[in-house]
Amino acid sequence: MDFVNGLKQKDTVEIGDILTGDFKGKEIKIKGAVHTVRDMSEFSFVVLRRYDGLVQCVYEESKIPEFNSKVLREGATVEVTGTVNSEERAPGGFEIRINAIRLLSEPAKDSTMPIPISKWKLKTSLETKLSLRPISLRNVRERAIFKIQEGLVRGFRDFMFSQHFTEIRTPKIVAGNAEGGANVFKLEYFGKKAFLAQSPQFYKQTMVGVYDRVFEASPVFRAEKHNTTRHLNEYTSLDFEMGYIDGFEDIMDMEAAMLKYTFQFLEEEYAKEIKLLGITLPDVTNIPAVRFDEAKRLVSEKYERKIRNPYDLEPEEEILIGRYFKEEYNSDFVFVTHYPSKKRPFYAMDDPADTKFTLSFDLLFKGMEITTGGQRIHSYEDQVAKMVARGMDPNDFTNFLMIHKHGMPPHGGLGIGLERLTMRLLDEQNVRETTLFPRDVSRLEP
Amino acid sequence: MDFVNGLKQKDTVEIGDILTGDFKGKEIKIKGAVHTVRDMSEFSFVVLRRYDGLVQCVYEESKIPEFNSKVLREGATVEVTGTVNSEERAPGGFEIRINAIRLLSEPAKDSTMPIPISKWKLKTSLETKLSLRPISLRNVRERAIFKIQEGLVRGFRDFMFSQHFTEIRTPKIVAGNAEGGANVFKLEYFGKKAFLAQSPQFYKQTMVGVYDRVFEASPVFRAEKHNTTRHLNEYTSLDFEMGYIDGFEDIMDMEAAMLKYTFQFLEEEYAKEIKLLGITLPDVTNIPAVRFDEAKRLVSEKYERKIRNPYDLEPEEEILIGRYFKEEYNSDFVFVTHYPSKKRPFYAMDDPADTKFTLSFDLLFKGMEITTGGQRIHSYEDQVAKMVARGMDPNDFTNFLMIHKHGMPPHGGLGIGLERLTMRLLDEQNVRETTLFPRDVSRLEP
Repeated sequence: MDFVNGLKQKDTVEIGDILTGDFKGKEIKIKGAVHTVRDMSEFSFVVLRRYDGLVQCVYEESKIPEFNSKVLREGATVEVTGTVNSEERAPGGFEIRINAIRLLSEPAKDSTMPIPISKWKLKTSLETKLSLRPISLRNVRERAIFKIQEGLVRGFRDFMFSQHFTEIRTPKIVAGNAEGGANVFKLEYFGKKAFLAQSPQFYKQTMVGVYDRVFEASPVFRAEKHNTTRHLNEYTSLDFEMGYIDGFEDIMDMEAAMLKYTFQFLEEEYAKEIKLLGITLPDVTNIPAVRFDEAKRLVSEKYERKIRNPYDLEPEEEILIGRYFKEEYNSDFVFVTHYPSKKRPFYAMDDPADTKFTLSFDLLFKGMEITTGGQRIHSYEDQVAKMVARGMDPNDFTNFLMIHKHGMPPHGGLGIGLERLTMRLLDEQNVRETTLFPRDVSRLEP
Repeated sequence: MDFVNGLKQKDTVEIGDILTGDFKGKEIKIKGAVHTVRDMSEFSFVVLRRYDGLVQCVYEESKIPEFNSKVLREGATVEVTGTVNSEERAPGGFEIRINAIRLLSEPAKDSTMPIPISKWKLKTSLETKLSLRPISLRNVRERAIFKIQEGLVRGFRDFMFSQHFTEIRTPKIVAGNAEGGANVFKLEYFGKKAFLAQSPQFYKQTMVGVYDRVFEASPVFRAEKHNTTRHLNEYTSLDFEMGYIDGFEDIMDMEAAMLKYTFQFLEEEYAKEIKLLGITLPDVTNIPAVRFDEAKRLVSEKYERKIRNPYDLEPEEEILIGRYFKEEYNSDFVFVTHYPSKKRPFYAMDDPADTKFTLSFDLLFKGMEITTGGQRIHSYEDQVAKMVARGMDPNDFTNFLMIHKHGMPPHGGLGIGLERLTMRLLDEQNVRETTLFPRDVSRLEP
């Protein structure tokens, strides 16, 4: 009988091994994809691509006559045996003088790369880049974007765990939706009508009754018909929800602390990508917090802009609020608090001091909303009353109201749009740049 | 201007603080939900529930006459001020003698708990438990199940990161599906036909071309019409996919190492829940690996069972294979390798030694399939040929074939059903027991 008992020692090395170990003058084996081949007269430079960087190899045809350099096409994968030499001009400060090559796989016969992925920056249109996503992501700069995104989620999760939040997994196929409205995807579910979850709202509130503090990083779905630079029809929402709060300020404090932790985590763990993409990590030591109505007044005064609707915030106003707090307080972030009750869902808690407003907030990052959060109603009677006042039937929400009926601590939470956060951090102009395989009104593939 | 700058020091303590700190005889403040109230003649025991356990408080009505014990209904949340006393018979070895109580929230007027969640084990039917899920999860034993599940995912992710896998987020709304067949949910997508992803298969293979090794822990959707104890219509799949493999054995080695790491991680980080649920962590030091045809032969001989179809494995056979390897090798796990080509999807690599079989495997845990994996075809010409041989049109798979066309390393991967893994680990008889909010043919709520 054969037994499986864990990882085997391999005789190949990784780029990281070479950078940190003492391999100079030694023969090693390394695997990789052919990134570029540059034919010189006597020899060729063959650059291999691996997950953690590029390796320059030098191939002399005279040395391995049985191996024709023509085989070394971009996209082939190989195992190279060679001697490590210092070479300042090569990535990582070393190159490998090839003694032997073994071909592991080849691209299709007669295929040619549709875009020059080995160039530093892909100078193609976003449209082309997205249509060729499986290939364009092989570009070193493109893939660094999604390492940063990975780091943002890791930082978020690590911080949540450190604050005793429990990670939950809530269903994406649901019977009803928290946000309501028309922007919901419908599907046929064994003869019943079902929807895709616009957010884990009901479930995360529910789970506060179980674990006090919960979080989830998962896909949400919005059937938005707008085809803008900042909307997606499927995106990743970083959600948390916490009980026993003294007020919605506790939620903002938690988010500020999370961002601080996460940016520091990126600085430590993703230094390579930060350098590669030229990211300046924002300062989140002191994030200004301003009331919704006050924010509108401030930008209206400073930028001589008429307030058209006191209960709504236009995208242009968001941009101006961002600009105002950058100019006046040198902050890339600003919390806008006390959103009008009309603009918030039925589970939002109204401000007892003025019920036209809610105990809620958005977080703007460089003039764009990346977070919506706030305190929720915990009292059964209050929640039913607000539903009725909005013309909703509490009988449609029996499962949700079960938690209020049997007791909920004062609680609140927020949702962060991961792709938008990444977009703003990288100063990208379109949220599709920071989405692995974006879904929009006209894009369902790849 | 107000500024938000991180977490504030609170004057309340957590159960963990009391257990690890020196609070004996001191007055503290603690918040929690009323779990049970037991009225004695002179005083009441009030047990509070928090995420990390239960706290016994002692309330003397004569001491706080202004606070009526009748207010302390199950599900109310309170802030208790009291003195910490050693008390061996109380959870954690201490109790709190209440000096003051502040009510934070109350359940609905006239509401009563629909199930006795403060009992050790809920002795209700699964059906009732699921219908009342928002409340039944408040039971200490029930919620421990999903802490274990959290730990399984954390262990998986931590191990993947340690092995240089990149975490990816692939779309759940897709234009086509990897597994094909009828069990796919359809939805209307802006006038186009779209589907819910049955697995991240195409995308994870695609991302191997970018990061060499990738993983994802995310929801997948199967429109299975079977209402069995082991099928769900939405579940969490722990997927990984790795390039530059020497064979499909590398994938099994990686899984075995991951399981070893994860069970050890559970032992260290989730000791409380392991004890609470009485879990015996399985030994994964040596997992037997047996060929599909050989496994069928072995159980047919030992249990005198006729082989009805040499190219298929019935659930009863899976159970017997599990039993065989438990009896003969004392192993809860067994890898069954070389599944018939007919039973595997078009992207599976056939065994060059006998193309009726594939370089693939399932992992059985106590007689149930929890993993399907294997090596994938990396050659463009081979992949096109296999599609054509199956009567598929390669033009329907242009985006997927793009990766083969432009070069893919030899690669493979697997998917693990998280809820099934949890179910087997906990010796539960129904996968719904280990699913937070299960979705099946007849259940779409809560």
